Amino acid sequence: MIVVLKPGLTQDEVQKVVERIESFGLKAHISEGTERTIIGAIGDERLMADQTLESFPGVEKVLPILKPYKLVSREFQRTDTIIKVNGHKIGGKKIHVMAGPCSVESRDQVLASAVPVKEAGATFLRGGAFKPRTSPYSFQGLGEEGLNYLAHAREVTGLPIITEVLDPRDLEIVCRFTDILQIGARNMQNFKLLTEVGKLNKPVLLKRGLSATIQEFLLSAEYIASEGNRNIILCERGIRTYETETRNTLDISAVPVLKQLTHLPIFVDPSHGTGRWDLVAPMALAGVAAGADGLLIEVHSHPEVALSDGPQSLKPQKFAALMKELKRVAEAIGRQV
Amino acid sequence: MIVVLKPGLTQDEVQKVVERIESFGLKAHISEGTERTIIGAIGDERLMADQTLESFPGVEKVLPILKPYKLVSREFQRTDTIIKVNGHKIGGKKIHVMAGPCSVESRDQVLASAVPVKEAGATFLRGGAFKPRTSPYSFQGLGEEGLNYLAHAREVTGLPIITEVLDPRDLEIVCRFTDILQIGARNMQNFKLLTEVGKLNKPVLLKRGLSATIQEFLLSAEYIASEGNRNIILCERGIRTYETETRNTLDISAVPVLKQLTHLPIFVDPSHGTGRWDLVAPMALAGVAAGADGLLIEVHSHPEVALSDGPQSLKPQKFAALMKELKRVAEAIGRQV
Amino acid sequence: MIVVLKPGLTQDEVQKVVERIESFGLKAHISEGTERTIIGAIGDERLMADQTLESFPGVEKVLPILKPYKLVSREFQRTDTIIKVNGHKIGGKKIHVMAGPCSVESRDQVLASAVPVKEAGATFLRGGAFKPRTSPYSFQGLGEEGLNYLAHAREVTGLPIITEVLDPRDLEIVCRFTDILQIGARNMQNFKLLTEVGKLNKPVLLKRGLSATIQEFLLSAEYIASEGNRNIILCERGIRTYETETRNTLDISAVPVLKQLTHLPIFVDPSHGTGRWDLVAPMALAGVAAGADGLLIEVHSHPEVALSDGPQSLKPQKFAALMKELKRVAEAIGRQV
Amino acid sequence: MIVVLKPGLTQDEVQKVVERIESFGLKAHISEGTERTIIGAIGDERLMADQTLESFPGVEKVLPILKPYKLVSREFQRTDTIIKVNGHKIGGKKIHVMAGPCSVESRDQVLASAVPVKEAGATFLRGGAFKPRTSPYSFQGLGEEGLNYLAHAREVTGLPIITEVLDPRDLEIVCRFTDILQIGARNMQNFKLLTEVGKLNKPVLLKRGLSATIQEFLLSAEYIASEGNRNIILCERGIRTYETETRNTLDISAVPVLKQLTHLPIFVDPSHGTGRWDLVAPMALAGVAAGADGLLIEVHSHPEVALSDGPQSLKPQKFAALMKELKRVAEAIGRQV
Repeated sequence: MIVVLKPGLTQDEVQKVVERIESFGLKAHISEGTERTIIGAIGDERLMADQTLESFPGVEKVLPILKPYKLVSREFQRTDTIIKVNGHKIGGKKIHVMAGPCSVESRDQVLASAVPVKEAGATFLRGGAFKPRTSPYSFQGLGEEGLNYLAHAREVTGLPIITEVLDPRDLEIVCRFTDILQIGARNMQNFKLLTEVGKLNKPVLLKRGLSATIQEFLLSAEYIASEGNRNIILCERGIRTYETETRNTLDISAVPVLKQLTHLPIFVDPSHGTGRWDLVAPMALAGVAAGADGLLIEVHSHPEVALSDGPQSLKPQKFAALMKELKRVAEAIGRQV
Repeated sequence: MIVVLKPGLTQDEVQKVVERIESFGLKAHISEGTERTIIGAIGDERLMADQTLESFPGVEKVLPILKPYKLVSREFQRTDTIIKVNGHKIGGKKIHVMAGPCSVESRDQVLASAVPVKEAGATFLRGGAFKPRTSPYSFQGLGEEGLNYLAHAREVTGLPIITEVLDPRDLEIVCRFTDILQIGARNMQNFKLLTEVGKLNKPVLLKRGLSATIQEFLLSAEYIASEGNRNIILCERGIRTYETETRNTLDISAVPVLKQLTHLPIFVDPSHGTGRWDLVAPMALAGVAAGADGLLIEVHSHPEVALSDGPQSLKPQKFAALMKELKRVAEAIGRQV
Repeated sequence: MIVVLKPGLTQDEVQKVVERIESFGLKAHISEGTERTIIGAIGDERLMADQTLESFPGVEKVLPILKPYKLVSREFQRTDTIIKVNGHKIGGKKIHVMAGPCSVESRDQVLASAVPVKEAGATFLRGGAFKPRTSPYSFQGLGEEGLNYLAHAREVTGLPIITEVLDPRDLEIVCRFTDILQIGARNMQNFKLLTEVGKLNKPVLLKRGLSATIQEFLLSAEYIASEGNRNIILCERGIRTYETETRNTLDISAVPVLKQLTHLPIFVDPSHGTGRWDLVAPMALAGVAAGADGLLIEVHSHPEVALSDGPQSLKPQKFAALMKELKRVAEAIGRQV
Repeated sequence: MIVVLKPGLTQDEVQKVVERIESFGLKAHISEGTERTIIGAIGDERLMADQTLESFPGVEKVLPILKPYKLVSREFQRTDTIIKVNGHKIGGKKIHVMAGPCSVESRDQVLASAVPVKEAGATFLRGGAFKPRTSPYSFQGLGEEGLNYLAHAREVTGLPIITEVLDPRDLEIVCRFTDILQIGARNMQNFKLLTEVGKLNKPVLLKRGLSATIQEFLLSAEYIASEGNRNIILCERGIRTYETETRNTLDISAVPVLKQLTHLPIFVDPSHGTGRWDLVAPMALAGVAAGADGLLIEVHSHPEVALSDGPQSLKPQKFAALMKELKRVAEAIGRQV
C-alpha cells in the first residue's frame, strides 16, 4: 500500500501516519520526493481493509498494491478450477451450454425446451422457479412446484439442473432439487445469501451484478470461497450502460480479464446480456471466441407467450443451429462443445 | 400501449397481433401509416406486463404509455405522504436530518456522535449494526449488540433510530429496536426483503440502487406499498458512473423528478453519494435547494479510526456548522430545518 | 410518431396539437383511451425533427416510430455496401485487418511494423500523424512528416494507408497521402469535419464516440452520407463505462446490432477498445465471431518505448500468431482473412 | 510516480526499469516488500506522460502521484481567478446568470428573450448562431446572420454576449461579435480548436464533455491555458449515464470537486444538464447552493415553436421567478446575484 502525504506536513505529523500504519503490523518505508512525501506500507495490506487511511490527517491518497481478494485469485491457485457435477467437468477443455426457459411455467413447457436442447447438445437444463422481477405485478415464479417440474425434466432427459435461489430461507428446498445453485445479478451483493451458500457443498454459478466492477465480482466470489465452498462458476451477463439498443451491454472483455485474475470457470449469458434473441447467436460465438468456458442460454418453445423474457429466448430450432456454429468456432480455438 | 408492426405484414398476421392484445382484455385500435402500421392497445396495460408483445411475430416494438407503478405514483395520490414517527412528521415543511456513524462500533462511539448531532439539530440517529460490506474480510457490524447501543443512545438523547436490515431473518430483531427500517442500495432489488417489509407496520427508508433507474426505484417502492406498508421514504444516494473523483455520482436531479412522479418523501444521502467528507456540506445544501425532504449524514467523532466509511464522515463540529448553513438555505426556499 | 397527451385536456387543446402536427404536413389520427388520449402523426416524421412537440402545451411525451437516419439505414439499402480501395473490397466475405503503430514516430519505426504486419496478412497499414491527445504535454504527432513516412512504407510494402484527420484545415494534405480517412472517436460529433469529409471522394472510417449511442453513431454517418460520400466504414472502439480493468468497454454487441440497422461495413478496434495488449487477441476473435468485417489493430516493434499507446500495442510476433487464429475462426463462420 | 513490479523479477530486470525511469531525469527509489517490489520515481513525472512505463517488461502497474495538469491547478495558483468582461467580474462573490435562447432564430426572437432576461437580472445574453446538431436534418444555425442579431440585442439591452464556436475557421468572425467564446461539450476534446482559442485574448467558457472525467476536463482547460489564454470558465452541463428520465445527469458534485482542484470559475448549465424546463429551477438552485459561480440558462419566449431545445427552455416569466428564488439562496450562502 502506498500512502501519499499532503504537501507541507511536519515531521511529527508524518510520524503519526507511520505509527498508524505500524499499528496494523505493516512496516512503513518513507520516501521524500520533491513535491510529495510517500510512505510504502509493506506487509499484508488486507489487514487494513476496513480502516482506510484516507481519512487520517495529512494523508492525500492511498494506493493499494495487492488485490483485495485472495482465495479466488490466480496468484493463490495457478491451475484452473475444474468443477465436477454429475459426471461433467466444468472449466476444462469442453465448453458447457446450459439452456432452457427463463421461467418454469408448467411441466410440459419445461419438457418442450429440455428435450430439444438435450438433443442439440446442451449439457445442463436451466429454468427459474423463484424469479426476481422488477415489478410486483409480474409473474413471480412457481416456487417448489417449479422445482418439481425441473426434476421431472431431469429424469426424462438426464440433464442436470441449474436454478436460481433468492432467499436464504429457500436454500434448503432449492438444494434438495438442483445440481447447481444460481445466484442472480441482483443478489451478487446479497452478502447474507453468499455466506450461506458458501457453507454448502453444492456448486454455485454467480452472476455479475448489473453495475458490479470485476473486482467487486471477485470479492463476492471470495465471500463464498472464504466460507469453504470453492466450486464457483462466474457468469458475465451484461452491465448497465447508457446504450439502449440492447437491454444490457455484454462485457465480453470481462472473460479474458477474469481468466487472468482468477482460476474459476467463466460463463457468458448472451440472453440477459443482450435482451434480444436475434443477438444471442453472435454474442454466444463471441463469448466462446474470447475464451468462455460455457454459456447460459434461454430457450423457449413459444417465446411469444413466455411468462418472462420472451424477447430474448431462442426457439429450439434456432438453438440447434447455434450449437452447430458453436462447435466449429470452439474447434477453431482448440476447444470442444 | 402502442404496438408498432414490422413493414409488410399480411392482414392475417396483423389480425393475430390484435387477437393477442384482446386476449388480455385490452382493445386494439389499428392505424395504418405510410411506412408503418401501429396498434393502440387501450385499457390497463399493466395486465400485459409479463407478456411482452415484443417477441410476438410481426411486432417491431412496443411503447408503453402508462407508468408501470401505481400506488406510489402522484397520479394515484396527489397530496404528499406525511409519515409520522415518534411525534415527527416526515414529508412536510420541515426538513429532517438523520445523522450518526456509519457503523455502530461501541456504546461510547455511538454516544459520541449521537449527543452532538442532537445538539446541532438532527432529529434522528442513524447507525449500522448489520453492515453490507464489499469484502468478506471487512468489519461486518456488531449485530444485536449494536442495536442495543443504538437503543441506549436513543434513551440518552431522545432521538429515534434508523438502522439497516439485510436479511428477512433479521427483521424481527431489528424491528424490536428501530423506529425506521433502512433498506440499503444493494438490497433495493432484494424482492423477498421488500415483500416482508411491506407486511410490517414500520416506516421504511428505501435507498436507490447503485445503477437503478428512477422507474426501477419506484417499482421497488411499489413492492412494499402493494403489501400494505405505505410509510416509505425514498433516498437518493448516488449512482455509478465513469467518474472516479467521487465514490458515486449523487443524482440531485432525481429529487425534483421523483417529486413529480411520486407522493412519497425524498431524502438525499450526501455521504454515500460522494464518499468524501469535504463534499458532504455543499451536496447537502444542493439536495435541500433542489427540494429534498431530508438528509442522511454520516457523523463520527473520530473518522480517522472509524471501522467503515471514515473518509466520508463529518466530525461533529463540521456537522454543526453545516446545520447552520442548512437552516439558512431551507428558509430561503420557504422550508425549515 | 405517437403523441401522448396529458390527461384532462379540453377538445380545444387537443385541436391545437392536431393543428401543430398538420402544419408539418403530417396527418393526425386521434385515439381516445381510458387513461390517455394519443395522436398518431402519420407521414415523414423527420420533417418535425427540429421541432419537438414535447414542449407543446398539453403534450406528455412523444414516441418516434421511424429511425431518424435514412441513407445509411438497412431499410434504404438492403444489400451490404462494398467499398473498393486499391483493389481491396471491404464489406464482403473477406475480413480486413488494418494494423500498424498508434503514432508515426520515424521512418524506420513505421517500417518496423509495416513489413511484418504485411507478412502476417494485414491488408492495410494504420498509423497516426495527427494525434488527438488528452494532455497538451503529450506527443502530438509528426504531422506532414509522418504522412511522408506512411507513404514511404506504402511504397515498400504495397499496403494502402489509413490515417486520422483532426481538423478541416488538414483535410487537403491528409487526402493527398492517405487511402482511407479516419475520423476518431473524439471527432465523431465534430459535425463540421463530417460535413467536409462528406464532400470528398475518399473512403472514411468513422469511429464510435466514447459515449455515443448507436443511433448517434449512425446519425454521424448520415452527416457524411448526406453530403454525397457513401464509402463509410463504421468502427466500434469501446465505450466509457464504470469498469476500470479495461480502458474502455468494447461493445461487441454493437456489431450485430449495426449489421441489422445499416448496410455499411463494421470494424472493431480491440486495441483502443481494451487498452491492453494482452486482451487484443481474444477480443479480436470475439469481434470476428460476432460478425465484424474487419479489425483495426495497433502493432509496434517496441511497445515499451512507443510515444503513445504502448500498453495496448502488440509486438509483430504476437500479431502474426493472432492472424493464424483469426484465420481459423473466420473459416469456422464461413468467412476468410 | 509509483512503479509496481511483477513478482519474481531478477536483479537485472529490475535494473532495466530503473534505467528507463532515470533516462527521463527522474530518480528511482526501490522498496522491496514481501509480495511486491515497488519503485518510487521521484521528480516531475509529467516528463514521462507520453511514455507510459506500463508496457515496459516486468512492470505490473504505474500509479501517478501528481496531477497531470499544472497551470489550471489550485496548487499552481491558490487564489480564485477573476475574469473581467465588459465591467463584470466573473469568479468573485457575485453569481452571474447568462440567459437567452438555445438558437438564434430571428432578430425579434432574440430580443424577445434578451429584454426580459436583462430585466430579471441576467448579466449576459446567450444564444447560438453555429449549432452542433446530432442530425444533419436539424436546423444548423443562422451563422453570421445570427451573430448580427445577437449584436443587435446587445446594443438594445447592454448585455454582453456569449456564443459558441465550432470550427477554427469560424473563430475570426465569431470573435468579432462575441464577448465570451463558448466551446461546447462535443468539442471539449477538439484539441485543434482548444489550441487556437488558447492563442486569443478573449474569455472562454468551456463545457464538460458528455463523458469526460473531471481530470480530462481540466486537461482540456490546460490546453487553452498552456497557449496563453488564462480567462477560462468551466461549465458542468450533465454527463451521460444510464438514467433516461433526464437528458443527462447533472453532476452537481463536480462543482465542489472543481473548486478544490482549480482556481477557475465554475458554472452550471441546468438546461442541458436536465433537458427539461421543469427541472431547471431546482437544479439552478442546487448548483448555486453547491458553490457555482454562475449559471447558463435557456430562455425562449415561445419554447413550443423553438427550432432547438424547446423542451428545456424556460419562458421569461418562469425565469424571472427563478431569479428571485436564486437571490434568496445566494444570500443564504453569503453570495449575491
